[in-house]
Order: sequence, then structure tokens, then C-alpha cells
Amino acid sequence: MPLSRRALIARVAAVGGYRAAYAAMGALGLLTPGFGQAASGQESYAALPSAQVGKGARVVVIGAGIGGLVSAFELRKAGFQVTVLEARDRVGGRNWTLRKGDRVEYTDGTVQVANFADGFYFNAGPARLPSHHQLMLGYCRELGVELEVLVNTSRNALVRPNLAEPPMQIRQAVNDSRGHIAELLAKAVNRQALNAELTADDQRALLQFLRTFGDLSEKLEYLGSARSGYKVWPGAGEQVAEKNAPLPLRTLLNPALANALMIDEYPEFSPTMFQPVGGMDRIPKAFEKHLGGALRLSAEVRAIHNQDDGVQVAYLDRKSGREHTLQADFAVVALPLPLLAKLDTNFTAPVQQAIGAVQFGYANKVAWQSRRFWERDYQIYGGLSFLNQEASGLWYPSGGFNQEQGILIAAYNNGETARVFGEKSIAEQIAASKQAVELLHPGHSAELRNPLAVAWSRIPYNLGPWINHEVAEPAYSLLNQAQGRIHLTSDGLAHSGVGIWQEAAAGAARRVVRNLFERVQTTPLRQTA
Amino acid sequence: MPLSRRALIARVAAVGGYRAAYAAMGALGLLTPGFGQAASGQESYAALPSAQVGKGARVVVIGAGIGGLVSAFELRKAGFQVTVLEARDRVGGRNWTLRKGDRVEYTDGTVQVANFADGFYFNAGPARLPSHHQLMLGYCRELGVELEVLVNTSRNALVRPNLAEPPMQIRQAVNDSRGHIAELLAKAVNRQALNAELTADDQRALLQFLRTFGDLSEKLEYLGSARSGYKVWPGAGEQVAEKNAPLPLRTLLNPALANALMIDEYPEFSPTMFQPVGGMDRIPKAFEKHLGGALRLSAEVRAIHNQDDGVQVAYLDRKSGREHTLQADFAVVALPLPLLAKLDTNFTAPVQQAIGAVQFGYANKVAWQSRRFWERDYQIYGGLSFLNQEASGLWYPSGGFNQEQGILIAAYNNGETARVFGEKSIAEQIAASKQAVELLHPGHSAELRNPLAVAWSRIPYNLGPWINHEVAEPAYSLLNQAQGRIHLTSDGLAHSGVGIWQEAAAGAARRVVRNLFERVQTTPLRQTA
Ligand SMILES: Cc1cc2nc3c(=O)[nH]c(=O)nc-3n(C[C@H](O)[C@H](O)[C@H](O)COP(=O)(O)OP(=O)(O)OC[C@H]3O[C@@H](n4cnc5c(N)ncnc54)[C@H](O)[C@@H]3O)c2cc1C
Ligand SMILES: Cc1cc2nc3c(=O)[nH]c(=O)nc-3n(C[C@H](O)[C@H](O)[C@H](O)COP(=O)(O)OP(=O)(O)OC[C@H]3O[C@@H](n4cnc5c(N)ncnc54)[C@H](O)[C@@H]3O)c2cc1C
Repeated sequence: MPLSRRALIARVAAVGGYRAAYAAMGALGLLTPGFGQAASGQESYAALPSAQVGKGARVVVIGAGIGGLVSAFELRKAGFQVTVLEARDRVGGRNWTLRKGDRVEYTDGTVQVANFADGFYFNAGPARLPSHHQLMLGYCRELGVELEVLVNTSRNALVRPNLAEPPMQIRQAVNDSRGHIAELLAKAVNRQALNAELTADDQRALLQFLRTFGDLSEKLEYLGSARSGYKVWPGAGEQVAEKNAPLPLRTLLNPALANALMIDEYPEFSPTMFQPVGGMDRIPKAFEKHLGGALRLSAEVRAIHNQDDGVQVAYLDRKSGREHTLQADFAVVALPLPLLAKLDTNFTAPVQQAIGAVQFGYANKVAWQSRRFWERDYQIYGGLSFLNQEASGLWYPSGGFNQEQGILIAAYNNGETARVFGEKSIAEQIAASKQAVELLHPGHSAELRNPLAVAWSRIPYNLGPWINHEVAEPAYSLLNQAQGRIHLTSDGLAHSGVGIWQEAAAGAARRVVRNLFERVQTTPLRQTA
Repeated sequence: MPLSRRALIARVAAVGGYRAAYAAMGALGLLTPGFGQAASGQESYAALPSAQVGKGARVVVIGAGIGGLVSAFELRKAGFQVTVLEARDRVGGRNWTLRKGDRVEYTDGTVQVANFADGFYFNAGPARLPSHHQLMLGYCRELGVELEVLVNTSRNALVRPNLAEPPMQIRQAVNDSRGHIAELLAKAVNRQALNAELTADDQRALLQFLRTFGDLSEKLEYLGSARSGYKVWPGAGEQVAEKNAPLPLRTLLNPALANALMIDEYPEFSPTMFQPVGGMDRIPKAFEKHLGGALRLSAEVRAIHNQDDGVQVAYLDRKSGREHTLQADFAVVALPLPLLAKLDTNFTAPVQQAIGAVQFGYANKVAWQSRRFWERDYQIYGGLSFLNQEASGLWYPSGGFNQEQGILIAAYNNGETARVFGEKSIAEQIAASKQAVELLHPGHSAELRNPLAVAWSRIPYNLGPWINHEVAEPAYSLLNQAQGRIHLTSDGLAHSGVGIWQEAAAGAARRVVRNLFERVQTTPLRQTA
């Protein structure tokens, strides 16, 4: 009987160790990257070897966000003995989906209770999975988390970069800018301004290209385009189309239009994007099922100390109010660095300093239940509308299309705007969110019900949505090294493109897991009783 | 007790007739158009009045495609007595979804049987619903047809305009063109080539805009962009990103790139788009449920004649082989015009001529069942890849993401290419389709199973996918008039943007329904026994 790939790898691992197993996986094509990926040097979602490399070594994982969950899941599969300590009474961390009855408690004691109708949810944290995030998509596949498309752009959505002017459809902003740019460049070519760069052949080809790119007339003028939408759409019988008149170039040069014009092009926001059906927390819930007895909820870690032959962790059982300590061979600390900075640790001074220098950014979301007026009256199905106002924009739901009601996110801001916004009272945040809806959909703020505001800097065990800058060298390399028996993992300890993503948390965790796979082969383990 | 809107309208209609009811609906805001729509002159999905304007008048509807189904559905709601005659043993017409066991029979007798595994389907005809198609989306809402996102573009999909060069990711083609164009235009501005068009302020604003638009360097050069993707994606620890080098402008000026670069911008292909969950034919099936006894399947109409006080229709019952005739007050002919041309009719000579002048275009699709290598190995989830070869491109499925297998459409062509392709043997079509897969995904054609080819010009009761040109004036106006007691409706009797769409069929049908609403108020009906 031929060996299954999995059995083969397990055997190779048993004989030759992790490196050999990994090499075998490569040879079997299990690590082969797809188009546009490097042949090596890049984490891909080939399952980590499930051979029992862990030798029963005890690992305590601190934090059950995506980083901690991935660590625990992979370590358990590889034969480590894992304990996960999580301060809250739920897994997921920033991956947080709110449904009817869920409480939002702020550090100052303020409490809101979600009052959406049954079946509705609000992803207060992560909401999008880009399609190159192969680790997250891979875990969804492995864990059976069903995915549906997250609509990140609708050409029918609106943008209002200048409150003194009415909103425009994104469709029109995108295509009128293409038109004007194409016309200007065609003029410049015809004025011989680019002869240094372009041969006569290139110029001909470019003019032809620009005609298509900008939908220019035969005379290479931009006279508006059906691509920018219609006042009257083409229809039956006598319903003849009337195109929208083009917007003036000056209106389109407003820098506040950038997001609306560019968002499709950042790989992290390009189609195709996904969301788990039913809420982002389907992912941590799916991991949770595989943790068995390893998970301790309501376990708030207070201290983490390297010892000569292991680690000691002290935590508060928030249910009983009792302090416990726990010994292990290794620890994986899967906390945001600014939270780790607050714990009692014995890291070296440079490490303490590197951790202490990391700061949180700011972000807020405000969600409402409402009639889906954006679909019925504006033909906007998913996507975002953009607004030059403190609430920044609206985010329409990508599920439940055509139903009566849905959850509208009417405020998702970050940076300095979000710092100021987050310090306001909940009533003020809600009022600003309503105003944002009015500015794009006049009259419709009256349809909004059951608001819920999440200011991430005010949520215990978060205190912020993400760190405000990539960790710079030399801190980055330092913190990516093992600290004695303690390995740090965090979305901040990965390069993560334009922002902080679950993929970064998963990637960083898998890197630490690989490090432990190797380390446990050579490190003497403390004898357990 | 206050009257419901519906009851109110029914009353107004009873007293004042259809026009009054329609005016009342307007007054109640039931006809209010959304953003970017004209206030009037445009069909919108306010339900047609359900008051009993039909007075029991007998209407025979010929054809049970979307046009015939919408006509019959609305006429029945309004109190007409409807009979639908459909030549096939199923409703839907071009709206045709193929599943395991379904037969594709060509006019020459060739038969293929769909051999996909259970649960898979192939939309051989319409597959996309744009989000401004408010009639189709409205019927889906009214009839309870569940919708999911149809992914029409994936930035990870591929384009190969030149077979002498390797494929590129669409992401890269899009963003490298933006980069080069932005750099060239910035140069031209700085060379004062556009001083006639742009003030100094405009120039500053435009340069700033171009920097963002094209991701230019501080010196306004295009040096490649993360937006164009990476050789190595940013990742954990030491996984530092390596951007793709930019493609040369000359490669990007290839006119065969147009579809890949432009498709998002045509309103008909812009996000957000939809598909019914489970197959496009969920829509005709949903209509069918509401037709009750009105529907006669396997009823092939042979003759349609205007008489002094009604219409007479002769049809063949294909089950029994018997000819029948049927009398009615009015007929709605919901057939493609080139099919109508073949029937025995007594239209005036100019009408016969106008109908006879309309010609079909050409289109083919070839579908396969396969492992979803495009997802697993290429990170392409839905969308299309484009190819300068006879099969034209690949279309990846928008449902069942992350599952093991899926249906890949590897050939969807039209125009002259499709005419030639359609005349080939099925074996040749399948070979060309395989080759298309090889050209974009080398090695993977070996994973393709259970092919099914649909050449629309060879399908009985279709003979073509759509007409090859919009019907020109004066034929358009002539055919949009009632021909005696006979009203023609067809996707070809509507302006329909870039192509022929179900929305056009539905809009044309509703226009005829409205005409009948008015007409029946004033036309004497033949006494029925
Ligand atoms: C508003 C917002 C939007 C986002 N959007 C996206 C998106 O669309 N897509 C995406 O992929 N990512 C997104 N992200 C980023 C994503 O949420 C994070 O990158 C990822 O969830 C981080 O996981 P983590 O495990 O590193 O950290 P966390 O999720 O923060 O996990 C840390 C865990 O440690 C626990 N903890 C804290 N203190 C202690 C203690 N003392 N003892 C024990 N346990 C403790 C916490 O309760 C938590 O469970 C978003 C984040 C936010 C806030
Ligand atoms: C390959 C392809 C792709 C398409 N893509 C899209 C898309 O993505 N989205 C979209 O909205 N539209 C699309 N369309 C267009 C769409 O299918 C049509 O516009 C629409 O279905 C036309 O409906 P209809 O009722 O006018 O005509 P048909 O569907 O052709 O209906 C005519 C009916 O009459 C019947 N019939 C014919 N002869 C007789 C006779 N003698 N007696 C009785 N009955 C007869 C036929 O069996 C048929 O049921 C596509 C079409 C094709 C072919």
C-alpha cells in the first residue's frame, strides 16, 4: 500500500526531525507557492508537520487572540502539552463579533448592551480577509469555517470629500478622473512634450490606449462617459439613456478623494475579499473546539518570569479571585506589546525598553441596525462610502442582501481623528455617526436603531486597536528572538503590508511554533513529576 | 383603521383607473428613484399596481423566458386571464442552468449530458446581475430568490494579451499602467506642456494627485509599487517584502489588455454584482411557482394571427404531436426577434421586414469540473482571467469557495471568434478550452473533468445568444408599437447598455404590461362563452 503524504511526512519527521520533514514536504510539492509568490522564504499554508516533534514539552500560551490560538493549535498538533491562559471569558481577542445581549464594557465602567435583532452581528474588530492571506484562508479551510465574499467596493457607493458640494458616486469619481487624466496626457503627447520618453510608435500606441482608458472621443477629448453613470439609465422602449455630465477636474483633485479612488488597488483591500458567514468570530470559535482542556478562560496573567530551566507564569483566576502560578518548559506570549509592557517580567533591560517604546494607535466603530435604505434607495450593496467628517465613512453589510434590515457601520475611523472621537461620550459618538449618515443619505438617519459604539482604546485587555507604527529596528529583530524560554508573538512582530492584520498574527505565531519545533529537539526539558 | 398603501392604491385604481393609481403611487413615494436616477422617465421596481385592472381579458404569452415570465406574472397579478405557451419542457429560455443529468441537444442532433458531481451547476446563459438592475433584483426580492455576490474581478486573476510573453496578474497590469501614465503626465506638467489647461494651482494639485494615483516617488517617478504585488509578500520575522519589478509601458499598451484594465468600470460589470445562490435558473423557477395552471410547456407556437377582435395562435403540443389553436384578446410575443421571423404571422410588410432584418450574434461557453487549483495554487477566488486565444478567457466560480472542487468556465467568447469556435466539433472546442487553461495555468488542464460545451447558435429555440446589434430606428420604434392585438417584447426592444441583459427583457415586458393596462380600459373585449 502506498504511504499517504501525511504518513510519509510523519515518518520522515520521526527519523530525521523537523528539518527533514519540512524538506520532504517541499519535495512533495506541499510547500509549492502559487503564481507571483517566491519559491522560498515565504510562509505558505502548507500544514505544519503533524509528526510528534513536541515530545510532550509543556508550553504555556498567553492570550487567546488569533496569535495565541494558532500557536496553541499547531503546538498541540505537534505533540506539545499546551495550556492557554486568556484573561477574558471568550477567545478571539480583537476578533470580536457582537450580537444581541453582548456587553461592551469600557475601562471606565461604562456599559453598553447590543440590542440588534436576532441573527444580526457586528464585527467590531477585523471584518475583512484579503485573498492573499493564505494562512487565514487556510485555517478557515482546515477548520471548516464557511466564507462568503466581503464586498469592499461598490461603484454605487458615495464619496463626499468636500462638504460644500454634494456627494458623488464613486463610479463617477473614478471614471471622470480617468477621463480627465487621459485627455491631458493625450494633449501633452500631441504637443510633443514626451518625445524624449516615447518613440512615434509608442505615442500612437499610447494615444490608442488613452482613448480606451479614459473613454475619450475620436478627438481625444473627455466628454463624459457612460462609465460614470447615468441620469436616466438605458431602458425599454422610449427610455433613452442620459449620461451624467462629467465632474470638473478641480473637484476630482481633492486629496480627500484618495481612499475612494485607490482602495481597490492596495493588495490588502483588492477584490476578492472574504468574511466568515455569520461573523468573524467563527474563526476563533473553530479554533476553540480543537483546544480541548488546554484553554483556561478568565485567567489574567500578571507575571511571566524566565527561570533557569523553564518559565513561571502567575495569573489571576477572575472567577474565583485567586492567584495561581504555573510552570512550563516554554512560554509563547501572544499579547499586543503595549499590554505585555504592563506585566511583571524579568526580560533584559533592552528588551523591556523595546517593548515599552511600542504605542497603540486609535480606532472606533459605531454600528446601527436599520432598514437597508442603502440597497433599496441607493443600490449600494456592500462596500464603503467615504466622507470628510470625523466618522470618516459608512460601511454597508456584505451579507443578507435584499433583506429588510441590516447592520450599517456608520463610523470607522483611525489615527488622530479617532483619538479625539474616542474620547467623546458615547452620546456624542452616536450623534456624529448619525450626522455622517445624513451627509450621505439625507433623511435616513431617522431609520437608524440600536446603536453600539466601540472605542478600542477603552476596551479592557485591548486598550487600542493596533500599534501605531511598525516596530523599527533594532527593536524588531530583538523582540523576534527568543527571550530565554519565552517567545513573543504578535501582529506587530511581522511585516504586514498597509496595516495590522490577523494574517500577521497568524504568521508570527507560526514562526514561533517553527522555532519551538527546532528548539525542543535540542533543549533539555525539566523532569515533570 | 388607516388604509394600507396597497389597499389605498387598489381603491384609487378601482375608482380612477391605472393612471390614477400610478399617480397615487408616485404621491406615496412608491416610485421614488434612488441616487443618480432621474425623477421620472425611468422604469423602477415599484411593484406595478396589483389592482384588478385586467378585467379578465385573455392574454396569450408566447415564450417563457424572463420576458414572458415577467409579462405573465404581472398580468396575472393585475387580473388578466393568462396562458403561457413555451416550446421547451422547462421555463427560463436563455436563463439556463445545467446540472448532473441535464441534456444539451444541438439542432444537428448531437447530444451531451452534464456529468458534474451532485451540487455543481453551470450557468450556460446569464450568470451576472449588476446592482443597478433593479428590476431583476426586485423580482429576486419579491420572489424570495436568495442572492450572493458574483465576483466579476479578482486582482489575482491573470491576463495574457501576448502569448509570446508570460501571463501577468491583473493587479500588476492595472497598477503598472496607472504608474506609467501618472509619471508621464507629471513630466508633461513639469515641462509646461499643459499650461493652457491648468493654472499653477491646478498643476500643484494635479502633481499631488498623480503621486497618489500612480504611487510615484517623491521625484514623481514610477519605480514599481506594492500595489502591483510582491515576489515575496511581507510576513513574520525576517520575511521582508520584495515588490514585483514594474512591467515596461510597451507591454501595457497592448490593446488586448483592455478588458482586464477596464471591466470594473462598465456599469454592467462594476462591483457589486450578484448571482442567485444555487444557479441563475432559481429566478425562472420562482416565477413558475406563481403561474399556476397558466403555463403550457412543450407548446411550440407555429402561427400568430391578428384578427379583427382578437388574436389566434396555433401551436404544436410536442408531447402528443397534436396541433392546437387558441383565441385570446391580446398576445404578448416574448421571443427573440429572429425566432419570431420564422413563424407564420400576418404582420404588415414593414413589420415583417423589420423583424426579418434582425440577426443573431454568437457566443459559446465550455465548462469543466475540477479541483479548485485556481484558489489553492493561484489565490484566485472568482473573477475572470483574460487570454488572447480563441477561448478568450477563464471564469472562476463565485460560490463554494475553499471547497475541494468547482466548476470552471474555460471559454466564454463572442463575436467573430465565437462564430468560428461554435462551428467546430465539440472535441475541438474542448481541446481549445484545455489549451486556454494550459496557457494561464500550466499543467492544470490535466485536472479538468466532465466538460460540457454550449454553442448557443446550435441550441433549438435559441439559435443564438442575443442579437448582434441594437435594433436601429425606424425599426425600433415600429416594433415597440402594438401590432394590432399583438405586443412584441424582447431584450432587443430595449436600450440595454453594453449588451443584452435580462434587465432589458424584464423592462421591455413591463412596458408591454403597462401598455396593456391602459389598453384594456378602452378596448372592447370579445364576449367569452
Ligand atoms: C477595528 C479593527 C479592525 C481590524 N480589521 C482587520 C481586518 O479587517 N482584517 C484582519 O485580518 N485584521 C484586522 N484587524 C487586526 C486584527 O484584529 C489583529 O491583527 C489580530 O486580531 C491580532 O491578534 P493577536 O492574537 O495578535 O492579538 P489580540 O487579538 O489582541 O489577542 C490578545 C489576547 O490576549 C488577551 N489578554 C490581554 N491581556 C491579557 C492578560 N494579562 N492575560 C491573559 N490574556 C490577556 C486578550 O484578551 C486577547 O484575547 C483589525 C483590528 C481592529 C481593532
Ligand atoms: C451566453 C449568455 C450570457 C448571458 N449573460 C447574461 C448575464 O450575465 N446577465 C443577464 O442579465 N443576461 C445575460 N444574458 C442575456 C439574457 O439571457 C437574455 O437577455 C434574457 O434571458 C432574454 O430573455 P427573453 O425572455 O427575452 O428571451 P429567451 O430567454 O430567449 O426566451 C424565449 C423563450 O421562448 C421560447 N420559444 C422559442 N421559440 C418558441 C416557439 N416557437 N413557441 C413557444 N416558445 C418558444 C424559448 O424556449 C424561450 O423559453 C446572457 C445570454 C447568453 C446567451
